[in-house]
Amino acid sequence: MATQTTSLEHVRHTLAHLMAAAVLELYPEAKPTIGPAIDNGFYYDFEFPAGKAPTEKELKDIEKRMRKLLPSWKGMTGQEVTADEARKAFSGNPYKTELIDEIVGKNEKITLYTAGHFTDLCRGGHAENPAKEIPADSFKLDRLAGAYWRGSEKNAMLTRIYGLAFESKAALDAYETMMKEAEKRDHRKLGKEMDLFEFDDDVGPGLPLWLPNGTVLTEELEKLAKETEFAGGYQRVRTPHIAKESMYKTSGHLPYYEDTMFPPMEYEGGKYYLKAMNCPHHHKIFAARPRSYRDLPLRLAEYGTNYRHEKSGELFGLMRVRMLSMNDAHIYCTEEQFGDEFRAVNAMYLKYFKIFGIGKYVMRFSTHDPKRLGEKYVNDPALWKKTEDMVRQVLIDSQIPFVEVANEAAFYGPKIDVQVWSAIGREFTLATNQVDFAVPARFGLTYADKDGKDKTPLCIHRAPLGTHERFIGFLIEHYGGNFPFWLSPVQVKVIPVAEAHFEAAKKVQESLRGAMIRSEIDLSNNGFGKKVRNAKTARIPYFIILGDKDIAAGKVTLESRDHGQVGQLALEEVIKKLAEEIKERK
Amino acid sequence: MATQTTSLEHVRHTLAHLMAAAVLELYPEAKPTIGPAIDNGFYYDFEFPAGKAPTEKELKDIEKRMRKLLPSWKGMTGQEVTADEARKAFSGNPYKTELIDEIVGKNEKITLYTAGHFTDLCRGGHAENPAKEIPADSFKLDRLAGAYWRGSEKNAMLTRIYGLAFESKAALDAYETMMKEAEKRDHRKLGKEMDLFEFDDDVGPGLPLWLPNGTVLTEELEKLAKETEFAGGYQRVRTPHIAKESMYKTSGHLPYYEDTMFPPMEYEGGKYYLKAMNCPHHHKIFAARPRSYRDLPLRLAEYGTNYRHEKSGELFGLMRVRMLSMNDAHIYCTEEQFGDEFRAVNAMYLKYFKIFGIGKYVMRFSTHDPKRLGEKYVNDPALWKKTEDMVRQVLIDSQIPFVEVANEAAFYGPKIDVQVWSAIGREFTLATNQVDFAVPARFGLTYADKDGKDKTPLCIHRAPLGTHERFIGFLIEHYGGNFPFWLSPVQVKVIPVAEAHFEAAKKVQESLRGAMIRSEIDLSNNGFGKKVRNAKTARIPYFIILGDKDIAAGKVTLESRDHGQVGQLALEEVIKKLAEEIKERK
Repeated sequence: MATQTTSLEHVRHTLAHLMAAAVLELYPEAKPTIGPAIDNGFYYDFEFPAGKAPTEKELKDIEKRMRKLLPSWKGMTGQEVTADEARKAFSGNPYKTELIDEIVGKNEKITLYTAGHFTDLCRGGHAENPAKEIPADSFKLDRLAGAYWRGSEKNAMLTRIYGLAFESKAALDAYETMMKEAEKRDHRKLGKEMDLFEFDDDVGPGLPLWLPNGTVLTEELEKLAKETEFAGGYQRVRTPHIAKESMYKTSGHLPYYEDTMFPPMEYEGGKYYLKAMNCPHHHKIFAARPRSYRDLPLRLAEYGTNYRHEKSGELFGLMRVRMLSMNDAHIYCTEEQFGDEFRAVNAMYLKYFKIFGIGKYVMRFSTHDPKRLGEKYVNDPALWKKTEDMVRQVLIDSQIPFVEVANEAAFYGPKIDVQVWSAIGREFTLATNQVDFAVPARFGLTYADKDGKDKTPLCIHRAPLGTHERFIGFLIEHYGGNFPFWLSPVQVKVIPVAEAHFEAAKKVQESLRGAMIRSEIDLSNNGFGKKVRNAKTARIPYFIILGDKDIAAGKVTLESRDHGQVGQLALEEVIKKLAEEIKERK
Repeated sequence: MATQTTSLEHVRHTLAHLMAAAVLELYPEAKPTIGPAIDNGFYYDFEFPAGKAPTEKELKDIEKRMRKLLPSWKGMTGQEVTADEARKAFSGNPYKTELIDEIVGKNEKITLYTAGHFTDLCRGGHAENPAKEIPADSFKLDRLAGAYWRGSEKNAMLTRIYGLAFESKAALDAYETMMKEAEKRDHRKLGKEMDLFEFDDDVGPGLPLWLPNGTVLTEELEKLAKETEFAGGYQRVRTPHIAKESMYKTSGHLPYYEDTMFPPMEYEGGKYYLKAMNCPHHHKIFAARPRSYRDLPLRLAEYGTNYRHEKSGELFGLMRVRMLSMNDAHIYCTEEQFGDEFRAVNAMYLKYFKIFGIGKYVMRFSTHDPKRLGEKYVNDPALWKKTEDMVRQVLIDSQIPFVEVANEAAFYGPKIDVQVWSAIGREFTLATNQVDFAVPARFGLTYADKDGKDKTPLCIHRAPLGTHERFIGFLIEHYGGNFPFWLSPVQVKVIPVAEAHFEAAKKVQESLRGAMIRSEIDLSNNGFGKKVRNAKTARIPYFIILGDKDIAAGKVTLESRDHGQVGQLALEEVIKKLAEEIKERK
């Protein structure tokens, strides 16, 4: 088990102050507002007089000034001050004044931090000796953006300056290289290029239309999940996309999660909601029949499509959407069965990581905070301890890398977020598992135990492949569009060298179709070289080439996108080879 | 091509009058209201004084009186009368008076029809000589029911008497035998018994939850459709379950079809609707890319789930629901391609009929009415003629039985409803195909033709397997729950003869699971005979039995639900045989 480091966060926070100091020296009329650390560096928001904000080009000057000031920042010392002293220090800056009033309103301490000649309003959390701890080449200013004060469009528009900051120049360079590669692999760009998905104004923002090529990806992922879950003893169910208000009152999603749900439909004197999660429907299926201990563990799986409200400004390609097609399942089990079930869920993750070539991953294990029992967390301290101990033990036993984070559990049990890194090293949150020992009781779910008594099962919520939307967004970047053979929208391009070979090529395509292999045929007037280049550009994993020599030999020539020429083979051999590779998901 | 017969309808209509005549002789205080022919006979609604309505038992007396009157009904003669004459004839009967006022209001003719001593208000359409044409044993009274006057709960509750009527006693007997069998095979009853689906008040009426066993049926049907459509050159797409109001305005569904849609969600200052059909989403996918003649025919398929409003009183098991999981596809093609495409659609139907052992079917071909062009039908007489001619020709060429019905087309083109008969002879409307030459233009769909000009494609809407809900409802009755092996929720029951064989049986189940064969294992303390009986009652198609002799021989014993003992075989042989049968959908 690793513990989380915060020192880089302190460095980034310090650099935000340093940038403000540099800006004020170069732009004395600027009014600094706030400047936090973020996950790749820091930013600071400023008000500049009209027409006097820095340009992208001038960011270099600010950066230089930061480097000039850095050696003088040998410490950053805090001092508690009165409200009046603070107001005086920032007189003429309405933003800081507003922040001070807020701190006063909450009856909290006001602290000012000083480094070099610069003083800022701050709660603390800095590098102890910036001059010594922060390499001058480990940060740079990145870009400018507009940002409303406090995120509200009713407020003034400020100028935000973003900086990047890492442990070292090497780490900074690596990040920039990765981001350049990520840009090439941007899932929105490749999604267009490869005809994977599209958005349409009449359908609505955040609601992807899966084009045929993208639909292949969703279908292949579902096929994989269904096979894997069948082998794991899961049973599939299907449930409607809507339900009455009463169900979401029982589940506790209303009124607490109403903001993340679509607004209701007024129907037959009541309200119906689009489902934002599958659990309540699955609980209803559990409840649809009397259950006994012999039925447990009961594993109900569904690729259910959920709808969630996300602010339109926060929608982002497939990564932040309003439609979520989720590889969901709920495992109802006894306390005794929990360990084995949870172990099997982890094993399934590892199996998927292997199939998709995901080498780096970590599980983020969120536990409760005993101080907030009965408020943020269900008040059952013994069960919390027991469940968390079980989860921790399974993680240790399975030798899965994990970090433990206090006070981030769900209200009904501990939570595990799965973080993975794409081939180019970018981090994604893929999926979430939750242990639920509260909601089954709210739905009155019970099973008759061996002793004849009715007991409430535990429930594990798990979704190893996350949603189609996010997982395919991840895979596009991970593979840079070069999907493995089994997953490729078009698996084979049939290329007749010239028009004389068109008919033979069509027959080849028919044979591929008979073997359920997805192919395209190039019947254009392009020259042979161009046909092959086009197939490569389209990232198609195999080409079957048909020319005079092939036809004379009664064979075809097989070429691979990744490994070059395979050879001249009988069509049946080719099909056998390809069908096997698909089956094995090589 | 057959033409529709109406004579049985005339007979049934006549029998409704005959029943009213008999009722009035036995219950002189009864007030007859209306009495139409229906698809298995007729009914008539009466007001009886409180406490004086006939009982179920007394239906026999009314039936006897009908038979007594029948010989005197040698004709049924009509006579046009004035409103006053009509009112006088039915004075004291407020229902008839209301009907007369209505006819007067519409400025239509009032006619009275008389047979024997009985006169009724009627528009006509009777047997010419009832005494001669109607066999006295070809009808019977069936049952009593309450019915509101004109179907509105604000009106008086009347007594409805239902009668059955067919061409002959033999036909009547056959119908009754069929209905008795249908009752045994009732999909709601078997749905419960076989754990196929369930409804839940918190989810909502008409919204089925598919339990694991029922989900197998939906998944197997989808698998079949996907394979069949892949072979047919279809491409799959996936679309959201919601869209903005603007899309349904463009499609023309709003405001005309608003009553059949769920009410909107007020969202982001606009309205979002649950989709009630997939076409507009598919049109948007067509429009998402520039299309050329080379892309046509473009066949977009989706098992899309639609939501439609049905009155709660009309919901009926899976046959009338509010959630429709539809085997949908839209084929975009040129006029030249239409014939081949439509022929291929019909061939696909025939393929499915063969797989499901559907021996009797008919296509009901609905055409337009030239008088209502520009009103009920898109005003393009030449295209109507051309399309209807093409459809008719394909139906004739394919030798598919069909009937032609004027003035029942969709507003945008001719329509074909597919009627099938279950194994016990009951008729179901399975699916609808439509030719659409209007909506693609409303969506501005075009393709660049060979001549470089933009043209609008035709669109064929087709759904050969209809919806999961209705088709599975049909299949439950059709098979009486004895689903074929490939489709069965549980395909194999593993039966260890005694506890000593439990471990070996578990290994057999593991092997079956590895081959993706769905099995259950009986580890109960029941005796061997009871275990086998239970498996048969559960309609499981194969049993694998494991006893001392089997284990000694290193084999298993295979038995079939439908064909008895298969024999003692090696497990690998059994699995090979079963896997082949599944693949071939025997």
